[in-house]
Amino acid sequence: MAATSLSHLYGQLSSNNICSPPILNRSRSFYRPIVSMTTIMEQQNKSYWAAIETQIDTHLKKSMPIRPPTSVFVPLHHLTFSASKSTAPPLCIAACELVGGFADDAVTAASAIHLMHAAAFTHQHLQLSDGPMHEGSTVEHMFKPNIELLTPDGMVPFGFELLGLSEQAQKNSDRILRVIIEISRAVGSQGVVDGMYQEILHGKLKGVDDEEMMMYVCEKKEGELHACAGACGAILGGGSEEEIEKLRKYGFYVGMIQGMLNGIGKNKQERFEIVKKLKDLALKELELFQGKNVDQISTLLEM
Amino acid sequence: MAATSLSHLYGQLSSNNICSPPILNRSRSFYRPIVSMTTIMEQQNKSYWAAIETQIDTHLKKSMPIRPPTSVFVPLHHLTFSASKSTAPPLCIAACELVGGFADDAVTAASAIHLMHAAAFTHQHLQLSDGPMHEGSTVEHMFKPNIELLTPDGMVPFGFELLGLSEQAQKNSDRILRVIIEISRAVGSQGVVDGMYQEILHGKLKGVDDEEMMMYVCEKKEGELHACAGACGAILGGGSEEEIEKLRKYGFYVGMIQGMLNGIGKNKQERFEIVKKLKDLALKELELFQGKNVDQISTLLEM
Repeated sequence: MAATSLSHLYGQLSSNNICSPPILNRSRSFYRPIVSMTTIMEQQNKSYWAAIETQIDTHLKKSMPIRPPTSVFVPLHHLTFSASKSTAPPLCIAACELVGGFADDAVTAASAIHLMHAAAFTHQHLQLSDGPMHEGSTVEHMFKPNIELLTPDGMVPFGFELLGLSEQAQKNSDRILRVIIEISRAVGSQGVVDGMYQEILHGKLKGVDDEEMMMYVCEKKEGELHACAGACGAILGGGSEEEIEKLRKYGFYVGMIQGMLNGIGKNKQERFEIVKKLKDLALKELELFQGKNVDQISTLLEM
Repeated sequence: MAATSLSHLYGQLSSNNICSPPILNRSRSFYRPIVSMTTIMEQQNKSYWAAIETQIDTHLKKSMPIRPPTSVFVPLHHLTFSASKSTAPPLCIAACELVGGFADDAVTAASAIHLMHAAAFTHQHLQLSDGPMHEGSTVEHMFKPNIELLTPDGMVPFGFELLGLSEQAQKNSDRILRVIIEISRAVGSQGVVDGMYQEILHGKLKGVDDEEMMMYVCEKKEGELHACAGACGAILGGGSEEEIEKLRKYGFYVGMIQGMLNGIGKNKQERFEIVKKLKDLALKELELFQGKNVDQISTLLEM
């Protein structure tokens, strides 16, 4: 998706900040309803997403028990579970269910997406010789920089290994290969890494008009990762090509909203107008699924 | 392969150094014959390996042209081709040919293995806030640390993307999935990353008896990467399970020899005795292929 595809939404924006994923409350659930009033419906949604989150955590813990050499596996475990929670992995499972698949079909892909996210999160906060990667980072460092450098280097291939070893790889090798390509692109040099690059290169230029760059970084770091999650869930659930593309676009809007509401400058009033428009666009993508249970997946727009 | 599997070879070793991949002459060919006398046979071998090396470089250059955003693709290109050359990628192609496959069947896997090696090489020389990762590193840094951190984060998924998109993935998806698992394991937390961890944790402890640790690091960083390369080549060439396992073991010994002859402490006399024994073990693995053209692949033992 081109950087300019959403530029019409940003006419009113006057922020010079670059959006970033949330860096506080990193171990808490990703579920943060915008409206504080608790209703029965809200509780049900909370339970739905909490159950998915538990399923992903359980799958990851089972897949990577702490074992020798503990000097490797203790940091791997810690950095995997202490990274901020992203909405992308649960979206992957919800998309799979929406097209008629089972949650189990997508749990490995969701776990792999979390590993990629946790690896990027850890490197984003690494202490380099010319200063920290992320300005104003409040992340506590449990390990020395060399360990925080190398551990994510193990997380990323581990995510691909999980996909290759999954039950789906036996049953539907073509689907898993497609998911491997989707995830590679979303997290690599044309995806999350590109967003992190541009954030570094342009993020510190104060006083310049970088609204478009902020949008580009948001698209790369959050939009495309969530788009990938939606598409992967639909692929693994056996969705049609049309369903896959609709859930890719839905995921993209969810990611953009997450980036805008939880990144730097998240309390700017102008953002709420843009988020409202993004929500409308997202809901439009779900129209294809009329008659199916779209209520659950659409509550991601309220988080 | 367990760390102790080769411990009987190390009885005479008195070095306290930890082996490392070569860090000098990083852009030169990996072909460095031990015997200086030039013969016709040696020239033929040189041409054989040079042709394979060119094939891998050409494949990589075609797969990753420099394109916008150049801030991402120029460092990606530079760090991919300026990393030290490893014998693992060409071994992958030679193994494929030995079992009756075509070089083209293995060139994508060989390219992916080079990308993983180049990513590890770049992170190994990264400038962190508490000092460089690699003591005594003479590598020139063309880019700032944040770029040298992020670029390899793009290289690794790109390697998996290449595999997923390869012609082999269409024809033999099961073989490619198997190769993805092999490469993930060899470069991840139980492979190269483990070796780099242990090198950091133990490498600076002078005066202690770390012969066994040196062997372990060599196994993880070089032995298992080359074992993976041999196995992947045989898998992609359609080799039998026995052939795959023989070429895995052959690759392991080649990698150990490379680590011992080109790493720190490479001029120690004691090493030549051990290397001689490793060569005998390696040649034994090739006995299965009697009657086939083992001459070419066995010249890796002279490099």
